[in-house]
This record gives sequence, C-alpha cells and structure tokens, in this order.
Amino acid sequence: MKKFEGLIAAPFAPMDENGEVIYDQISVYYDFLAKNKVVGAFINGSTGEGVSLTQKEKMNTVEAWTACSKAKKTVKVISLVGGTSYKECIENAQHSAESGVDAIALLAPYYFKPAGARQLAEFCAKVAEAVPQTPVYFYHIPVLSGCYVNMYDFLQEAAPIIPNLAGIKYTHEDFMDFLSCINFRSGKYEMMWGRDENMLSALVLGCRSGVGSTFNYAAPLYNQMIAAFDNNDLLTARKLQQQSIDMIRLLGKYGGIATGKAYMRYLGFEFGKFRLPVKNMSDEKFEKFKADVRALNMEELFSEK
Amino acid sequence: MKKFEGLIAAPFAPMDENGEVIYDQISVYYDFLAKNKVVGAFINGSTGEGVSLTQKEKMNTVEAWTACSKAKKTVKVISLVGGTSYKECIENAQHSAESGVDAIALLAPYYFKPAGARQLAEFCAKVAEAVPQTPVYFYHIPVLSGCYVNMYDFLQEAAPIIPNLAGIKYTHEDFMDFLSCINFRSGKYEMMWGRDENMLSALVLGCRSGVGSTFNYAAPLYNQMIAAFDNNDLLTARKLQQQSIDMIRLLGKYGGIATGKAYMRYLGFEFGKFRLPVKNMSDEKFEKFKADVRALNMEELFSEK
Amino acid sequence: MKKFEGLIAAPFAPMDENGEVIYDQISVYYDFLAKNKVVGAFINGSTGEGVSLTQKEKMNTVEAWTACSKAKKTVKVISLVGGTSYKECIENAQHSAESGVDAIALLAPYYFKPAGARQLAEFCAKVAEAVPQTPVYFYHIPVLSGCYVNMYDFLQEAAPIIPNLAGIKYTHEDFMDFLSCINFRSGKYEMMWGRDENMLSALVLGCRSGVGSTFNYAAPLYNQMIAAFDNNDLLTARKLQQQSIDMIRLLGKYGGIATGKAYMRYLGFEFGKFRLPVKNMSDEKFEKFKADVRALNMEELFSEK
Amino acid sequence: MKKFEGLIAAPFAPMDENGEVIYDQISVYYDFLAKNKVVGAFINGSTGEGVSLTQKEKMNTVEAWTACSKAKKTVKVISLVGGTSYKECIENAQHSAESGVDAIALLAPYYFKPAGARQLAEFCAKVAEAVPQTPVYFYHIPVLSGCYVNMYDFLQEAAPIIPNLAGIKYTHEDFMDFLSCINFRSGKYEMMWGRDENMLSALVLGCRSGVGSTFNYAAPLYNQMIAAFDNNDLLTARKLQQQSIDMIRLLGKYGGIATGKAYMRYLGFEFGKFRLPVKNMSDEKFEKFKADVRALNMEELFSEK
Repeated sequence: MKKFEGLIAAPFAPMDENGEVIYDQISVYYDFLAKNKVVGAFINGSTGEGVSLTQKEKMNTVEAWTACSKAKKTVKVISLVGGTSYKECIENAQHSAESGVDAIALLAPYYFKPAGARQLAEFCAKVAEAVPQTPVYFYHIPVLSGCYVNMYDFLQEAAPIIPNLAGIKYTHEDFMDFLSCINFRSGKYEMMWGRDENMLSALVLGCRSGVGSTFNYAAPLYNQMIAAFDNNDLLTARKLQQQSIDMIRLLGKYGGIATGKAYMRYLGFEFGKFRLPVKNMSDEKFEKFKADVRALNMEELFSEK
Repeated sequence: MKKFEGLIAAPFAPMDENGEVIYDQISVYYDFLAKNKVVGAFINGSTGEGVSLTQKEKMNTVEAWTACSKAKKTVKVISLVGGTSYKECIENAQHSAESGVDAIALLAPYYFKPAGARQLAEFCAKVAEAVPQTPVYFYHIPVLSGCYVNMYDFLQEAAPIIPNLAGIKYTHEDFMDFLSCINFRSGKYEMMWGRDENMLSALVLGCRSGVGSTFNYAAPLYNQMIAAFDNNDLLTARKLQQQSIDMIRLLGKYGGIATGKAYMRYLGFEFGKFRLPVKNMSDEKFEKFKADVRALNMEELFSEK
Repeated sequence: MKKFEGLIAAPFAPMDENGEVIYDQISVYYDFLAKNKVVGAFINGSTGEGVSLTQKEKMNTVEAWTACSKAKKTVKVISLVGGTSYKECIENAQHSAESGVDAIALLAPYYFKPAGARQLAEFCAKVAEAVPQTPVYFYHIPVLSGCYVNMYDFLQEAAPIIPNLAGIKYTHEDFMDFLSCINFRSGKYEMMWGRDENMLSALVLGCRSGVGSTFNYAAPLYNQMIAAFDNNDLLTARKLQQQSIDMIRLLGKYGGIATGKAYMRYLGFEFGKFRLPVKNMSDEKFEKFKADVRALNMEELFSEK
Repeated sequence: MKKFEGLIAAPFAPMDENGEVIYDQISVYYDFLAKNKVVGAFINGSTGEGVSLTQKEKMNTVEAWTACSKAKKTVKVISLVGGTSYKECIENAQHSAESGVDAIALLAPYYFKPAGARQLAEFCAKVAEAVPQTPVYFYHIPVLSGCYVNMYDFLQEAAPIIPNLAGIKYTHEDFMDFLSCINFRSGKYEMMWGRDENMLSALVLGCRSGVGSTFNYAAPLYNQMIAAFDNNDLLTARKLQQQSIDMIRLLGKYGGIATGKAYMRYLGFEFGKFRLPVKNMSDEKFEKFKADVRALNMEELFSEK
C-alpha cells in the first residue's frame, strides 16, 4: 500500500439519545470528511469508542464505513481491531479484511501489560498473520493502554516477524523515539503522528501524515498548517498550531474526549454522547462551550458541513 | 445471598499446548477445590485470563463451572463479567445469570478510566440492573484496571442505585479505605480481601473472606492461618503469613502471574501457559522454580490433589 | 539502644505569623507529649518541615529538643538528617550526635533517586559511618521521596555495611515487605509503623511502635487501641481505628499535611502555618474544620493540653 | 537582560577520586565552553549535581564560575539556587547575586510538591523578591522534581508577582504547553529548551536557545543543527538530530546521567564520578562505552578540547 499523506480523521461513533449507534449517519459523515480533504478514517479507535462497543457493533461500524469507501474511494478506512484477547482480535481482523478495509490497526493489550517489546510484538504477530494480505498499523497510545514500550524497540522485534507491518500511529510525545522510528530501516515504516496539538514538531522531523480527532472538525486548520510548513512559512505555521492548541485547550476545560462530540454538534452534527464511563457535558455547559468556541474566532478554520 | 466465609479461589484457565481452553479439566478442578475446603470459585478473573478469552470462551467457561456447582453444590461460582463496554458486560452478565452462577462481578473499565466514583457507579448500575436477581460484586484491582477511585466513595454512589450490590473484592492495599467499607452502612457489604500476602492484616479488621490465586494451590496454609487467628494464636498466624509471602515472592522472582500455573504444574495439574502478552516460564526455568519451591519446605501447606 | 515501644510523635515546627520558628515553644511541646504518654519525638521529619528549614534552623531545632530530653529524659529524640547530599547529611548527623539525640534517621535522596537497594544502602552507609555510636533508622516514605526500593531488599544490602542500623520507620502500605522486614535476621531490626490510619493492621504482624503525626493530638486514641489489641478486644480496637480514620479523613478534606497544625490549634497550640509550597487553610475554612472536628465526637481521645 | 541565543551548557561538577570538587578545573572548563561556541553555563543544576553538594560547595562553585565570567565575559553564568526551603534558596540567591551571576534559576520544591500553579509561583516569588535586580529563570524538570504543573498556568500566576522573571528552562516534552508559553504575553518570556534529543522540534516552534548537558561535549553538532534549520536545510538538521539521539541513547545504555562524565573523559577531561546515590560506570564498562562512542563515527561533531 502506498503511504498515507495528509490527514486521517478518527471518526466519532454517531449515537442516538439512548446511546445506540446510528449507522445511517456514516455515509454523510464519510462525504463530509472527503469534502474537507481528509484522506483516511481511523475507525473504532479511542475517538470512535471502539472499546465501548460490542463486537457486533464494531463489525457493523466496519461494514458501514467500508460500504462507503468501496463505493466512493475518496477516504481510505483503517479499522482498529486491537483488544486484550488476541483470539478476539483475530476474529475482528478477519472480519475487517473481508469487509474491505484498507488496513487494520492493533493496540497494546491494556489489561495485562506486555512485559516488553518482544511480548508486544509476538502478540501483534498472532493477529497480523491471520490477515497476511492486509497492512497492519500499530497504534501507540500509552496514556490509555498503559504500555510504555518504546516503539524503536518494538520495531526491532516486530520487523522480522510481522511482514505486513506498515507503520505506527504514534500518540505519545517521545520525539526521540519517533524520529528513531522514522529512520528505522531507511524509512520503511510509515509514522503517523497522533497528537494534533504538536503536529508541527512532528512535521519538522519528516512526518507526512497524522491521525487525529480534531481533524474531524478542523481539517482546514491542519491542511493550511502543513501547506505553510511546506512553503517554509513558519510564522503562519506556528500561528495555526497555536490556534489548534487554543481549540484543544477547551477539551481539557470541558472534561476531555467527550468534548469532541460537542465540537461536532457545534458544526451541526448530532452524534449524541460518549458511552459510560466517559463523562459528558450537560446542555447548560454546552452553551458556555459554544460561547468559548465563538471567542476563538476561527470559524474559517473549521471543517465545512 | 448469605455472605461468603472463607477462601474463594480464582481458578486458572486450563489450556492445552496450543493455548486452547480445556473445558474438560474443570470438573476435576472443581472437586480439587472442594476437597481443599475452598468455598467459592471466582472465574474469568485476572488469574482465569478472562480478558484474554473470546466472549464465547468466557461463556463456555461459565457453563463448565456452573455445571459442576449446580450438580455438586460444594463450591459457589462468581463470574467476572467486567469489561470496557457495558453493553457487552450486559450480554455476559445475562448469560452468567441464566447459567446459574451464584453471583457476578464487575471491574472498572480499563481503557477509558472513570472520571470519578459517580461515573464508575453508573457504569456498574447499567450492568447490574440487567440481572436484578443476581448478587453483584465489584472487583477493585487498580494496579491492573488503572482506576484508583476509593471504594468508600464508590459505595456512597453505588449503594443508592445498585440494589443488588453485594460487596467488593478488594485487591489493593488501602486498609483505611477497606475498613471504612467494612463499616459502611453497618457492615451491609461483604468485603472480600484480594491480597493473599497480607490477609492477616485484613482479618484483624474483621474481614471474613478472601479471593485469591494462591488459594488454588495453598488453601491449607490460609485455612490454618484463619484458624490460628480465630484462636488468638498470633505467633502461628504470623508464621503462616510469612510462609505465604515466601511462596508469593517466587511469583515475582519467576516473572509474575504466569508462575501460578507453574505452581499448579508442581502439584500435578497441566494447565498450559498464559496467553500472550503474559510472559511464561521456560521449561529450564521451571526446574529451578521446582527446586526453589521444595526449598520452601512447606509441602503440607499446599493443596492436596 | 533498647527498642522503642509505643508512640513516637513527629512534632510540628512551631512558627510565628512570619513563618519563623519559635524555638521557645518546644519545651512546653515536649512536656505535652510526655504527659500524653508519647515515648519519642521524631523531629525535622515531614511533619516537622525539615526540608523547608535552613540547615541552621534544623540544627537549632535539634538543640531545643535535646535540651529537653537531656534534662527530663521522658521523651526520646530521633532527628531526621536525611537529604540529597550525603556530605550535608553528615554535617547534620554529626551535629545531632553531638547534641545528644537518641538516634538519627535517614531518608532516601529525593532528587536523584537511587538506582536500587545497593545505591540506597551505600548512600546511607556514608552518613551512618560518620556517627558510629548513634543508632540509625531509615525513614521509608516513597510517596514523598519517590524511592520505591523494597525495604526487605534494602536490609539485605544495608545489614552488612551499616553496623549501627537500628530499624526502619515504615510509611508505606506494603505489608508483605513490612512483615518480611520484621522477620529479617530473627527480628533484629526495629520496624516502626508510619501510617496511623492502619496501625492495627501492623500490630497484628507483631509491630510494637509507630511514628506518626496524629500522635501529636490523638495519643490517647492510639494508646487505647494498642491496649485493646493487647487484650484481644478486637471490637474496641477496630472501633478506635475507624475513629482514627474519620479524624484523618479530615486531613484530606482540608488539604493535607497542613491540617495537622489546625488540629493543634484546635487543642490550643498556635503553631502558625506550614511554609510554602504547602497549602494552608484560611481562617474561614478553619471554622468549618472546627465544626467537623466537633462532629467527630471524640474529645476524650484527643491529647490533653 | 538581552535574551540568550544559542547553547547554554549545564556543566558537570569536576571531582577528584574521593568525590571532592576540584574548583581549579573550572577555569579551563570555562575556556573550553567558550571555544566551542557555548554562550552560557547553567551551574549547580542536575548535571552539575547541585543537590549532591553542600551549601558551601555550591557557593564555592558559583564563585569559581563567576570569577571566569567577570574576567573573560565570553560565557554567561546562570546559577541554580532552587531547593526545598525558600529560606535557604534566598541565602543562595543572594550569594549568587553578590558573586555576579548573570541570572539565577529556581526549581519546584521536590519533597513537598506544590499543590498547584499558585503555590509554585508564590514559592518562587519569595526567592525572586530577595534579588530584585537579578533575572530569574524557572527550571521545569518534572521527571526529577515531581512537579507537573503546566508552565502556561505557572506563567499566569507568576507574571503578576515576579517582576524579574525572565523565562523558563523547559525540560519536559509537552510541546503544547511550550508553544503556549512562547506566545504568552507576546513572547515576553524566554523559553529555553532542555531536551537536547528533540531540540529540532522546539526550534520549529520559534525557540532560540537550549540548556543541555550534551552541549558540554557535542556543541558543534547542535550549532550545526541550528544553522541547518535556519538555512531551511531540514534534511541535514534531521540527520544531526538523529546523531544526537544515537549519542544520547548511550546514556540510557550505560546507566543514565553519570554517563555524561564518561563522555567528558572520552574527550580528555577527568571529572571523576557522580556522587551517590547516582550509579557510575565501572572502568571495564568504560572500555565498552568508548568502543560504542567510536562506532558512532561522529568525532567531528564533538567539542574540541
């Protein structure tokens, strides 16, 4: 598979008032991403609440997204199939492959933590070898998985035993490790940056793609930032990165990941709430949030519905 | 349900050389626990590798254990149905209830961590209300779940909204929190201790039951310790607790939770290995381990096959 | 030195409104502790704000306390001389020894953390050998020092190289480690418990002394708890431990360690505030605190002025 | 004070075989830094073992460095006076100011951790107001201090109460926080990067200076990297950053901070060992280390003696 270049959004799971997934919204969602020059969708990830869905719901989600990607071919689909049981991961991986995803992604098991890079690589290999024709990404997000194995160490263990390993979604701030991975085996593996709030610090290292939740609602901001960086207009790039930070700071202020769905609501998408145990915003708080968003004064940087 | 009194073992998942669960061994296993005066089996927990099994395997495990408990009625069965998706927990809880477990247990979701006691209680309530006739235990094990909410705070939130809450399996070392829970609502909730290596420090606070992995292979040790404590023979109780510690120290020396299956092998049970990402002992190491176990000189304190 | 038996208080540093130490109050403080059957004073520790004092202030504090202990001989004095520079620790240790303390105590260096038990033991040995006639205690408080070396491992390294090592003040909740230390070399080292809120769980293991901040203001509670335990009246002992917990819970509610000085103020001692960066209670909050303390309804368990 | 531009080295404390500081070496050391185009010396910091020195030794160190800077005026001197007692910090700050340092630096107190940004700012203000004519930098290094307060929050509290605050030495990987500080009050505060291994990711955000230990022995590498970045030659800049990483990876391989003195020994400076509790390299290991350094094949990037 040719490497990704550009923005890969991690879509939210659209839900109704009872917390049931509304698969019907996915087609509109897909077009919205394409319209805003998003090149990929990383589904069933943290933003997509994969861990909060049942296995059946995850599979339905995969089918809804791949129905779009197979028909329209604008936005590629990467499906996260990671979990704590490699046998269940295999079930999910095979279903994803059969459904026509462009790639799958794996996560470090997050209950029993791998003792080291070798155990992590062996765990991933078990799943990857069940879908030998499908590119496999590793999704590194220690703050949630609890697995702090260096990716440079992981690549050394994984490269020889996972022939379909394609790269890493890197959601952590160890730039020493990240650059070492970029340079591993002459750049063989695709390193996708996963922290929107400091993407500029990854671009300067040679990174060409990112996976993020804020690409859902602010794709223009990041596409402009990449363009400015490519044109060596660093003043503009820094200004846009600071605007991304101001936007992301509201996530912290309003309680974390669930604020993402509030941003989507701001744009006109009713995606409901995050499932428990995630904490959601009250309607009252949403009004304050809206005022804060308006005060950012960055309407032209948000994605267009 | 009348409260438990005594030892509740957390059984291992018996596996063959390929890592497939051997359900056939469970009947023999059940009798072995009963013979050694274990009063309950806490299945699909950490020791039982619940998170490493598929949903189907977990259900099969429940059915194998409840087949025994319904027929023989010596050892009660508590089934862990916790996970990260409350919808999947409900599926598992309903299956467990229909299979005839004596109780279910829930775990804090371990990917998205609950923001506080309220979110944790609400998550548990969602599952508990789906099996209103079944006693529900909360399994507190922050070192694995990553959820450090105080159980005293949890009880305050959970008591009003989970009528079938029966108690807590407490696998953490906050004795201040633990005693506060024992005394909560005049001792309404059953507090089961989950750290075998310092059970004596829980007994002195009024605790009457424990859930542990080492009760699988050293039930006599703990039953003798409880008896010594009840007889106010503290010198003997302390000596036995130290022997339990010496035994448990070998878990650390030989790599952690997988050493439990090595202890079972020492007793004559071939339960295979732990699934990845858990690290297992090599055969060579097992020989050294056996020598270390023999040097403990505590054969009469091990469970009898 | 004969081992301690009973309560060792960790005195506060009495300060005036400008945060200057009032050494004059120490004589009255000493008598107050003696009156309430406290057998030792652990000075310049966490409660005593040793780290917030200058070297000169620490030395003045030592001189004020040893002036009392040499004259009155009721309460023994242990002086914490730990720090991050072993050379400065030696200066402090020698001054303490010359001033006539009964023992000194050392802390794990808390900026550069020891790589392991050996480095920790070697660091302590450097200081201990400078005061060969003085008993040395190690003060284990990982939550503040950041050093999580097991004390059982430490004793194995320290025993051969620190002949004047007398024991450990154990302010951590690893009862497995604690009991192993009690039994190390047939009980050669004195293990003093440092978590007042679960002292009962230490007593059952054979511990006979504790070092704590709440012994300053609630010595009767703990002396009664020890007596009840010794008389095998566990119901009373548990009730008292729960009362200690209720009292200590107010520390958390009102912001931590500085609340200790508020308890002293409640008893009639004006000891001022904790120095920055510790957060103190406002006068307004103190009124609420007083109401909460009264609601505990345990006046007869507080120390008598 | 005009802002720094370029490399500020954090010098090692030269010691003899008995661990005594050799102040005589400092003059040669000073010239060596100047020769290699280092613009500042950040003394008594982590690399300089400030916490392992006595107060007198720290003062002697200050005097030796300022004797050079006052005479030669090539390399400016910043003296770390941080500690856990603000009164002792004031003593050190006043001595530094009188000795003629160009600036002082403060550290978060590392035993009692500040409850929040306000307590941290108030602690620093106490010291800063004692040397009102001296620029003050805050040294942010949470991995050692244990204080994880965001610097953006700190600046909001500190700006109004510390008029002589000049900037922050930022030794942490939160680039979102870092860029927010760069942009705070239109760039009023100087943000000096403290992680040599990812300096390129800071340069792209507009950072113009760094404080680091590897600038002691590899200043040419970083000066070339800055030049390449300024010339928009990113391929060269990335290559040099990777070489810096390869060099720094040996620190991890050989046990951490003490490896820095081994690099100096490699260059011909006999600076002895780090004081306990830091672990040092054996002579045997040093031979292996030398071979590894030679294999890096980057002699021309090391500082010239």
